[in-house]
Amino acid sequence: MSLLTVGSVAFDAIETPFGKTDKIIGGAATYISLASSYFIKEGKLVAVVGGDFPKSDIKLLEDHGINTEGLQIKENEKSFFWSGKYHNDMNSRDTLVTELNVLENFDPILPDSYQGVDFLMLGNLAPTVQRTVIERLEKRPKLIVLDTMNFWMDIMLDELLQTLKLVDVLSINDEEARQLSGEYSLVKAAKKIMGMGPKTLIIKKGEHGALLFQNDNVFFAPALPLEEVFDPTGAGDSFAGGFIGYLAKTNDISFNNMKKAIIYGSAMASFTVEKFGTERLVNLDEDDLEIRFQRFIDLVQLEAKI
Amino acid sequence: MSLLTVGSVAFDAIETPFGKTDKIIGGAATYISLASSYFIKEGKLVAVVGGDFPKSDIKLLEDHGINTEGLQIKENEKSFFWSGKYHNDMNSRDTLVTELNVLENFDPILPDSYQGVDFLMLGNLAPTVQRTVIERLEKRPKLIVLDTMNFWMDIMLDELLQTLKLVDVLSINDEEARQLSGEYSLVKAAKKIMGMGPKTLIIKKGEHGALLFQNDNVFFAPALPLEEVFDPTGAGDSFAGGFIGYLAKTNDISFNNMKKAIIYGSAMASFTVEKFGTERLVNLDEDDLEIRFQRFIDLVQLEAKI
Repeated sequence: MSLLTVGSVAFDAIETPFGKTDKIIGGAATYISLASSYFIKEGKLVAVVGGDFPKSDIKLLEDHGINTEGLQIKENEKSFFWSGKYHNDMNSRDTLVTELNVLENFDPILPDSYQGVDFLMLGNLAPTVQRTVIERLEKRPKLIVLDTMNFWMDIMLDELLQTLKLVDVLSINDEEARQLSGEYSLVKAAKKIMGMGPKTLIIKKGEHGALLFQNDNVFFAPALPLEEVFDPTGAGDSFAGGFIGYLAKTNDISFNNMKKAIIYGSAMASFTVEKFGTERLVNLDEDDLEIRFQRFIDLVQLEAKI
Repeated sequence: MSLLTVGSVAFDAIETPFGKTDKIIGGAATYISLASSYFIKEGKLVAVVGGDFPKSDIKLLEDHGINTEGLQIKENEKSFFWSGKYHNDMNSRDTLVTELNVLENFDPILPDSYQGVDFLMLGNLAPTVQRTVIERLEKRPKLIVLDTMNFWMDIMLDELLQTLKLVDVLSINDEEARQLSGEYSLVKAAKKIMGMGPKTLIIKKGEHGALLFQNDNVFFAPALPLEEVFDPTGAGDSFAGGFIGYLAKTNDISFNNMKKAIIYGSAMASFTVEKFGTERLVNLDEDDLEIRFQRFIDLVQLEAKI
């Protein structure tokens, strides 16, 4: 099935206890597109970059089979830039720089060839832009997944709530779920949020795994205990890319299949954090992915072959 | 198989956002004994209380089939007393009062009838007292499980390290594992700690589940997402009681059986936090337990019957 991803394609500069990078390719749509490329071919991308964005980075996306027809290049502007520094525990970070640049007036133009897409992944962006994309699609996709963050809850809550009414799956982290619902218990938070529009809710808990809620059903995907987390940047977006990529590949949006999709999402995230930026994510083969998926299964399996 | 539990039997006074209690029965060995009583009959208890400890609370233990021959009553002294207040998120608490009283000079005397016990559970106590119990057993038990806390790492680390050399399984929480090992990564922490004596390590992560390590094997038991956590007191000890109770019942200390034991431990902890103190733990039936166990299994099961 076809997949359209909308989100940022950007520069990141990252500092962790293990080292620091110059400006490297980053952005929600970058991680989502790369992660989903291991499941589906010709993923469609809508994003915007400035004239400063290297052709080699665009080629990197194309080499992973990503359709960049919807990637706008504003020659006289600069790309979105984020810089952050992770603390020793890797669970918290300081944002050092945020330059919106091309994102400030981003108009998500959809090429005609993108119409009729089956799956839509709305990466973290202004909820107004996310809604515009939904409105510009002539046929409603089979499944719309939206990722957002606390920033939009702080400054654009009403717009976010309007957009949430239009989506099938919301993917946020535990703190964001608490903020959006006003409930500390994630079970209570999930019930409230599923009343806001999305019938399915994913709550990401970072190194503590992820919860999938739908009606009265709940599923828990553990995170893999890792020796070393090198750079958490992009983990949540890689998770989203693995999740929707697997759903699009299998064309099955049942709750049972979403469970598998969440494990594939967790697997993609676990690769991403092993190296800086997209370094690990761009260098996977099918065996890596299946072996990693099996490790997640074995981690919670009572009857293992030991 | 027979089980001996050593630890505190005490008074707790608890305050949570949901209410507060007067002095109620508490203590590590209380929760461990009660939790394990759902798996084995005639669990043996070694502990000490003062003359202020109500006969009705001792009868409560005996009504659950617990052998209290090794429960010393110091008529002219006072029972150990702990008082604490939980914060709104229930993940942190302030200790308001700690009165050691009878625990200050606790000599763990083993009745003759306790010799030859198969399983030994050393609840949180001074590591010197824990070691004395091991030394006083004429035959080494088949399995020795030890629980401890950061307090002993702060003030009695050398004694703790000596005692750790004598045990098979150590049960601590994530912060304690980091403190004991000096490693932030729990995978690295586990490797170091397994080099200190215990061949098996349980790392409890509270609402984020528990990890079981042995050699290169790792298993993850999720925590059940709960609508309401009423009072977390005793959750870790209930977990330990369910864990060793199930192992003693099945007389199987293989890694695969420890996985099941950890789920039963998690199930017991999930009951305990539903009400104040031991209130829920003393009122379970076999159906409750099996239904709860199955909920833990279903939570991570890919192929559920939905």
